[in-house]
Amino acid sequence: MEAIFIKHPIVVDILTEIENYCNSAIQENFSTETQPLQEMLKYHLGFDGTSTKNKGKRIRPLLVCLTAHLCGANWHNVLPAAVSIELIHNFSLIHDDIQDQSLTRHDRETLWVNYGIAQSINAGDSLFSLALNEIWKLSKSYPINVAAECSKILTSTCMKLTEGQFLDIDFEKRTDVTPAEYQFMIEGKTTALIAACTRIGALLGTCDRKIVDNFELFGKYLGLAFQIMDDYLGIWGDPSRLGKSTSTDLESGKMTYPVVLAINNNQEFADRYKTGKIRSEEIPSLLHLLERSGIAEQTITQADFYTNNAITYLRSAAGNHSDIQVLLDLTHWLLKREV
Amino acid sequence: MEAIFIKHPIVVDILTEIENYCNSAIQENFSTETQPLQEMLKYHLGFDGTSTKNKGKRIRPLLVCLTAHLCGANWHNVLPAAVSIELIHNFSLIHDDIQDQSLTRHDRETLWVNYGIAQSINAGDSLFSLALNEIWKLSKSYPINVAAECSKILTSTCMKLTEGQFLDIDFEKRTDVTPAEYQFMIEGKTTALIAACTRIGALLGTCDRKIVDNFELFGKYLGLAFQIMDDYLGIWGDPSRLGKSTSTDLESGKMTYPVVLAINNNQEFADRYKTGKIRSEEIPSLLHLLERSGIAEQTITQADFYTNNAITYLRSAAGNHSDIQVLLDLTHWLLKREV
Repeated sequence: MEAIFIKHPIVVDILTEIENYCNSAIQENFSTETQPLQEMLKYHLGFDGTSTKNKGKRIRPLLVCLTAHLCGANWHNVLPAAVSIELIHNFSLIHDDIQDQSLTRHDRETLWVNYGIAQSINAGDSLFSLALNEIWKLSKSYPINVAAECSKILTSTCMKLTEGQFLDIDFEKRTDVTPAEYQFMIEGKTTALIAACTRIGALLGTCDRKIVDNFELFGKYLGLAFQIMDDYLGIWGDPSRLGKSTSTDLESGKMTYPVVLAINNNQEFADRYKTGKIRSEEIPSLLHLLERSGIAEQTITQADFYTNNAITYLRSAAGNHSDIQVLLDLTHWLLKREV
Repeated sequence: MEAIFIKHPIVVDILTEIENYCNSAIQENFSTETQPLQEMLKYHLGFDGTSTKNKGKRIRPLLVCLTAHLCGANWHNVLPAAVSIELIHNFSLIHDDIQDQSLTRHDRETLWVNYGIAQSINAGDSLFSLALNEIWKLSKSYPINVAAECSKILTSTCMKLTEGQFLDIDFEKRTDVTPAEYQFMIEGKTTALIAACTRIGALLGTCDRKIVDNFELFGKYLGLAFQIMDDYLGIWGDPSRLGKSTSTDLESGKMTYPVVLAINNNQEFADRYKTGKIRSEEIPSLLHLLERSGIAEQTITQADFYTNNAITYLRSAAGNHSDIQVLLDLTHWLLKREV
C-alpha cells in the first residue's frame, strides 16, 4: 500500500525540518574531542552520507508535530519535543540491537557490529542524555512549567519503556506467556512512547485536558495496532520490503502476538514450542499450522480492533479540523503498510 | 586513614536517609509485573540483603545534602536531587562494568555476570530513567523553575559523562594520550557529576550565584583529585582494602594518570607501552620503573594540588559556617583514604 500520508505538503515540510533538526542536535552538542562519538550517532541515524534511503520512518516526531498542529500550535515550536522523542526511540534501538544481537537495521550493519558493544552501549546512553537535554529548548516558545511537564512525561515514559523491554527479553526464555502479559509488555515497549508523542503534541497545542487525554488514547491504540502489525509482518511480511529476514521472529523465540495466541490456543503449536528452539526447516510447516488455525486472521482482526479504537479517539480529539485526514492516512498506512 | 567525616552526626543522619530514600525509590516505581527488574537494581545497589557492607560510599548524594545544608537549606528537602545523582552514578557503573568486562564490584559479582548483558544494559537504562524522574520530586519543596534548572544540569552533565566515557574506552587502543586529553576525559567521566552535586546542592540553598559557582568549583577540583587518587590506588593501592585487584589498571591498558605521565615523560616506559599489552610478570619491573622515575610522587603532588584548589573554593563558598569541617574532613579523606 502506498504511503499516501507522506504526500501531504505539511508532512513533507515537517519531515524535512525533523531531519535538519535531528542532524543539528547531534552536530551542535558534542565537543571537538569527541567527534567520533558524534559520527557514531550520525551513522545510526542515517546522517553519515552513506545512506539516504532506509532511515527510520520518523513516525514518532511526525505524530508530535501533527498532533500539536491539529490542536492549534505552530508545529515549528514543538520540534524540540518531536526530536527528543525521535532520539529516545533511537537510543532504545541502539541498545535493543545489542540485546538482540541484531546484525542489520535499515539494510546496514547495526552500530555495535560496526563499533563494538562497549562504545555502542555508551553511544546509546549519550543519545538518551542528548534527547532529555533537547526537550528544554521548548522553553524558547513555552513557559517553563509546560516544558517541565513534557520532560516529566518523557522520563516516566522511559521507565515504562525499560519495563517493557525487560519483559520482552524475559519472555524469550518462557513458553507460557499469556495474552494479558503480552499486552502489558507491548504497552511498555512500544505503546508508551507513541502515546507520549500524541500527549505531548496535544499538551503543546491546547489547555483542554479532555482533548489531551483523547489524543493520548489515539496514540495508545495506534501503538498497540502498530506493534500487532509489526508482529504479523515479522512472520508473514515481505522480507524485501522490510529490510530484514522474516521467519526470524519464529526462530528467535520472541514472544510476538501470533506466537502468544498460538501457544494459548493451539495445543500442537504449544507442545512443539515447549520442546525447544524452532529450526529453520520447521518454519514452513509451523507457518501452515498458524494459518490453518486462524492465527494470522486473528492477528489482523486484533490490529483492526485497535486501529478502529485509535480512529474513534482521534475523531473525538480532533473534531472537524481540516487536516485530520493526514493523521487518518498515517494511521491506515501503519496498519496496512505491507499486507 | 580513618574516615572521620562519617562520624559527624549530620553525616550519619544523611547517609541513613539516603539509603532509605534510594531503597524506596526503587521499591515504589516499578509494576508488580517487573519485580525481577526491581530485584536486579536492588542487587546492584546492595539492597538485596546479601551484603550490608561494601556498598558504594554514597559520596555524591552526601555532597548534595551537605552543600545544601551549608547554603542554608533543610537537607531533607534536597534528597530527591541527592538520590537522583546517586542513581545516575549507579546506572553508569552498571554499563561501565559491561564495557570493561569487570567481574566484581564491592566484593560481589557485577550485575551482568549475574543476569547477563542484555538485561543488565536494560537495567542501567531503567535506573537512568528512574533517576531523571526522581528529580521532579524536588517540586514538593521548590518552585518548578528551580526543579527544572536541576533537571537541566543533570541532563547536560550526563552528556559530558558519556563523552568522558567514550574517551576512556577510546584511549585503551591508543599509546599517545597527552595530559590535556586525559584531563578532558576525566572532566567528563568523573568530575562533571561531582561538580553537579555541589552546584545543585548550592542552588537549592542559595540564590547567590557567586556562592553557587564557588561550590561548583569545589566539586570540580574535588572530582579531579578523587580521580587522580583513584588512578594512583589502581596501581599502588592495597588490594584487600579496595575490594579489587590492583595491577589490573596496568594490565588492562587503561589510560590512568600515572600511565599518561609515564608515556609522556619516560622513554623506556613509552617504548614498552607501544609494543603491546603488559603481561603480569612484567608488572613488578614496570612498577619499579614508575617509582624510580618519580611518577608515583608526581601523581600524589597533582592530587594534592587539586585538593588544595578544592579547599580554597570550599572556604570562599562556605565562609565561616560552623559545619564546614564536615566537608573538609570528607575532602581530606577522599585524598588520603588508602595511602
